[in-house]
Formats: sequence, C-alpha cells, structure tokens
Amino acid sequence: MTIARRLARVQARLTDTDALLVSDLTNLRWLTGFSGSNGWALVTRHGVTLVTDGRYGVQARNQMNSAGVHAAVLVGVTGAETLSHLAGLCAAHDTVSFEADHVSFAQHSRWAAAFDTELRATSGVVEAERRVKDPSEIEYMAEACRIADQALADVAPRLGEGLTEAQVRNLLEIRMRELGASGPSYDTIVATGPTNAALPHHRPTDTLIEPGHTVIIDVGALVAGYHSDMTRSFVIGDPTPVQRELYELVLAAQSAGVAAVGPGVPASHLDAVCRNLISQAGYGDWFSHGTGHGVGLLIHEDPFINRVSEATLQVGDVVTVEPGVYREGFGGIRVEDLVVVTSDGCRILTASPKDSPCPPSPPTT
Amino acid sequence: MTIARRLARVQARLTDTDALLVSDLTNLRWLTGFSGSNGWALVTRHGVTLVTDGRYGVQARNQMNSAGVHAAVLVGVTGAETLSHLAGLCAAHDTVSFEADHVSFAQHSRWAAAFDTELRATSGVVEAERRVKDPSEIEYMAEACRIADQALADVAPRLGEGLTEAQVRNLLEIRMRELGASGPSYDTIVATGPTNAALPHHRPTDTLIEPGHTVIIDVGALVAGYHSDMTRSFVIGDPTPVQRELYELVLAAQSAGVAAVGPGVPASHLDAVCRNLISQAGYGDWFSHGTGHGVGLLIHEDPFINRVSEATLQVGDVVTVEPGVYREGFGGIRVEDLVVVTSDGCRILTASPKDSPCPPSPPTT
Repeated sequence: MTIARRLARVQARLTDTDALLVSDLTNLRWLTGFSGSNGWALVTRHGVTLVTDGRYGVQARNQMNSAGVHAAVLVGVTGAETLSHLAGLCAAHDTVSFEADHVSFAQHSRWAAAFDTELRATSGVVEAERRVKDPSEIEYMAEACRIADQALADVAPRLGEGLTEAQVRNLLEIRMRELGASGPSYDTIVATGPTNAALPHHRPTDTLIEPGHTVIIDVGALVAGYHSDMTRSFVIGDPTPVQRELYELVLAAQSAGVAAVGPGVPASHLDAVCRNLISQAGYGDWFSHGTGHGVGLLIHEDPFINRVSEATLQVGDVVTVEPGVYREGFGGIRVEDLVVVTSDGCRILTASPKDSPCPPSPPTT
Repeated sequence: MTIARRLARVQARLTDTDALLVSDLTNLRWLTGFSGSNGWALVTRHGVTLVTDGRYGVQARNQMNSAGVHAAVLVGVTGAETLSHLAGLCAAHDTVSFEADHVSFAQHSRWAAAFDTELRATSGVVEAERRVKDPSEIEYMAEACRIADQALADVAPRLGEGLTEAQVRNLLEIRMRELGASGPSYDTIVATGPTNAALPHHRPTDTLIEPGHTVIIDVGALVAGYHSDMTRSFVIGDPTPVQRELYELVLAAQSAGVAAVGPGVPASHLDAVCRNLISQAGYGDWFSHGTGHGVGLLIHEDPFINRVSEATLQVGDVVTVEPGVYREGFGGIRVEDLVVVTSDGCRILTASPKDSPCPPSPPTT
C-alpha cells in the first residue's frame, strides 16, 4: 500500500489551487500504480480521478486496485471524448494547476479552448515528492544494481577475447534478463578505443575491442520499473602511464564525490568536489558533462548534479556520481556508482570492483 | 546521403516563416542523422544549425558528417548557454516557427522571455515529410520484420512447455539480439489466459502459459533506429469453438484490412473495414482500440488509423493493421502485420504464418 500513501503527500502540496492535473506518465505511475502509455489524473484535496483511453481501462482499474489506490476511471475511446472527460472534471473547480514542463504548447492551447476553468502553470509538484524514495523503491533499485553487478562480473573477464562493442552489449543485456531484470535500464553503452570511448554517450557498434583500448561500459537493469545505473572503465592489456594516471584521477574524483554525498549538500558542491580534482590535474576540459543525476522510475530525474544545479541533496535521494574524462585519440574513462542519501552520508548500491582498470582474468579451465 | 536530401524537403515547406526550430528528437534525428538525447535544429531556407550540450558535440559532428549533412554545431555546456545560443540564432529572423506539439508550455514561456523574435506555433511540418519512407528506411524495417519473424518462429514451438509470459518475452528478445537487432522495438507483449490476454497492452508477468489459454505475442525488432511491429495470437491445446470462431473473425478482419490498404484510402475507412466485420459478428465492443498506426523511427507515428483519423494513406506510409478482440474471462486475440503502402496497394513486410491459432509443433528429436 506504499503507492496509496503517495496521494496524501501530493495533496498536501495543493495549497494555492483547487486541483492538479497530472499529465506526466511517470508521475502518474508513481502516484497511482497505473503504467499505461496514455492517461491523466486530476488530483483534488478529496481524491483522484484517472482518465485514459480504451486500451487501458481494465488495466488502470486492476493496477490501481492492486496498489490500494481508490480512483474513479473515465475512459475516452477517442481523443475528443478524452478531452471532454477532462473538461468535465475540471469544470467543478475554479482553478486547476497543470504540469507546465509536461504539457505541450499545443495541448495547453486545446485545453484553454475547451476548459471553462482557470488553468495555472506549475512545475515539479509531484516530482518534489517522487524524488524521495521509500524503502520499497530503494529495494527495487538495489536489486537492479545487484543484477547489473553480476552481469558485469560475468562478462568483464571476456573483454580481452576480441569481441565487438555490440557483442559485449548483447552479453550484458541477455545476462541481466537471465538474472531477473525486465530489461536494460537504458541503452547499454559499450565504447572502445581512441574514437568511440571519447564519446560519453556512444552507442555500441561493430568496433572490435582491442589491446591498448580504453573501454567504457555503462550498464543498468530495470526491476519493477526502477532503474539502476553504473559505469566501469577498463584498459585492455597493460595500461600506459597516461591511461593509468587518468584512471586513478577519475577514480579519486569519483571516490571524493561519493564521500561528499550527504543531506544538505548542494548538488553544485558535489559537482565541484569531483570537477576540482580533475581540473587541478589539468584535465578540466576533458570532463564534459555533469557529475550525476537522480535515478528512479526514470533513468535521469531530479536532482541533477552539475555546476549550475540549485538542488540540495536530501535523505532518500538516489543519485549517480559519475565523473569522466574523454578525448579523441585517447578514448575515455568514467566511473559511476549509484548511491542513496542517508542521514549520515550515503549507502552505495553499486558493488562492482573499481580499484583497477584491468578486466578480471577469465576463469582458468 | 539519403539523410542529406531530407533538409530540402523540409525547407520547401517554410513558405510562411523565416525558420523552423526543430525540438522533437525524432524529427532531429531524421533530419540530421544526430541521435543524441538533447538538441535543437534551426532550419532556414539557407541551411541548418544544430545546438546541443557538452555530451554530444563530437557525436553530433560525426553523425552529421557521416550523413553528409552540412550543419554548424553550437555547444552549450549549461542550459543557460544553450538558451543563449538559440536566442542568438533566432535573433537573425523576424519570425521563427516552433513545433507546438513538442515544446512544453514551460519551454515556450522561457523562449518567449529570452528571444527577441516572433515565435509562431506550427505542427507536423517535419512529420509530414518523415512519414513517407524512402527505400533505405523501408529496408531497415523489412530487416527488423525478418528478425522478429525468425525469433517468433524459433520460440513459438515452445509455447506448450509451461513457460511464463516473462520467459517467452526473454527468449524472443534474446533471439532478436542474436539475429542482429539492436534491441526490441518496444516492450514485448506476451499476454496469456482469461485475464492477462484481455488487456491489449499487458506487460509480461510470471503467469504460466497453460492449456486452454489464448496467448497474444506482440513483438518487434529495432534496426538502425527503425522499428518493426507484429502480433500473432495462439491457443494452447485444442481451440474451443468460441476461440476458433474469434480467431477466424479477427483474421478475416485483419486480412480485409490489409486488402483495403492503398494510396488515397482514408485511414478511417481502413479502420471501418476491420471494425465492421467484427461488429457485424456481434463483437464490436470487444475491439477496444484503433486499427493501426504508422511505424518508423517511432513505434507509433503518423498516420494513425482509427475511427476519427483524418489521415489519408499515401505511397511510402508504413502502417500496422491490427484488429483484436479482448474480454475478461475469454482472454484476447490480435493479429497484426506491418505493411508499406505502394502505388497498387501494399507490400506486407511481416511473414509469420497466421492461418491457424495453433502454435507450430516443436521439432521432433
């Protein structure tokens, strides 16, 4: 009944409006347990009503029933019927807030024309509650981390076999499925060598993983809709002095970042802890992205951890800490753990070893 | 250089505006070849400029270079820098159209405050060109269909083995990967029995596939970003008369739908062809969704095929034809092919057999 408790948390935020029209499907899922691809929820101080289309009426009732959520369901077979349902619901209220980040300009225009209600733009209402994970959510993510850890432990010893990026990706994703994941958490990144590994978000290709390459593997599992997120980097063969120096630099920055995590810590400070170490070593330009982000029902969600973030970490945030360095000709190195902010710092959910850039040896037969 | 030709098709539509600011990432990918998760393109009659963030600068240049697209790339490391780049680009024009379906209300508000340019809402400009597939796109989708066909041929003989929905899903997705897919085209649906198969968009669970069940398998592969989409339905064991009647009804409706596909055909007419057969047999209420949708870089895109669609099919559209019937206590049956509209009707890209609800027998050993 964890889900059923969430409604009250959101209702407590409805202080300056009669109702909140939830459009974002992730917010909707978190709030009601309904995981269809089309739907809206009107939340008032007295309850919640769901509107969806003909594909999802039965599913919505079943999922909300399982979650202990008591909500009326209105089904519109056509878009016009759905709009009419929403207009009817909103007509009972003087002001209805809408999620301005999740409603398109065109959608708002249609609503403004059809609704006899004051529509008020708002932002981040459900997200502010959703970012604080409850124990069941943390357990799903911990399980997703365990699956990704095990898959990497099983596949990493094969990195020296002359496989392609895409083959390693396939091995990881198949293994995660075998271990109980409902899928990969995102498109698994396997990036090898002086060109591909220099791209922080490279997609796996048929490029061979060869001696001398740096290899970035960014992999997570999906469990009950919750994501994990981890990166480990490897050097194939004996690392060069520069490869070793940069691996140790990134690892030091990442470890310092994890050590700095705690409630009340500004996200921009956490970014600075990682970034300053890399910049002081002369590689600031090589660290071309933010230090991390929240993870939950989305792989990227609040709080974002970067130079300009205004977020402050709080207990229950689940965030990545993932500094990296990238340069065409060199390749790249990134190390990333998923951590939960606790009252006295953080709990690290990722357990894959990170102390060495060398892949584990294959088992001797 | 197919991608490079697309810019001219979009530029030809810029008749009442100085520029189009493309926000939708699928439109951006189709237009430029850039597949990152953050970016905008300003298209003018004279060219195109891409704006992205620090993660994607190198990738954007590489991908556009490979695609033969000549575009300047501006990289903003922070959101404020990106906004400033966009404002600077737009300042050179009196009116800039934006994609009102793909820009949030909040995003538009930020742009309106920061840009010294008239912003004009528009809709479907790139989509109108994107829906017409060129031969290379059709070949990617045909290959995706072949992979899903083969995976289903390999897995369907095992449906009587007492597997769970999730196990069948895993077998299908692993097999598609082995056959060269970069992933499943969408979350594979395996829905069995009187309750789960009654949900058109059920997600696989640990429910066992048992004798007497109807089983819906909706599976597609992803190849070079392009999707396939197919559904086959099975009865485990000897079909009851009602199961057989409904299978044959859905198959007749689906076959009639495929036969009705051609250029100039209103999508609502195609929907009616399928729906009328099912309604005349007394099962109209059991067909709770539209008849189909376009497929391409998205699994659901224009043209949508339903009762209220205003689209007309045209040569180069790739669409699904997928009537189904669903009822709690009975389960469900859906049959779906992917077809390309041709000058004289259509070419069916899906080759999996559909003449019988009985799964193929396992090979004798």
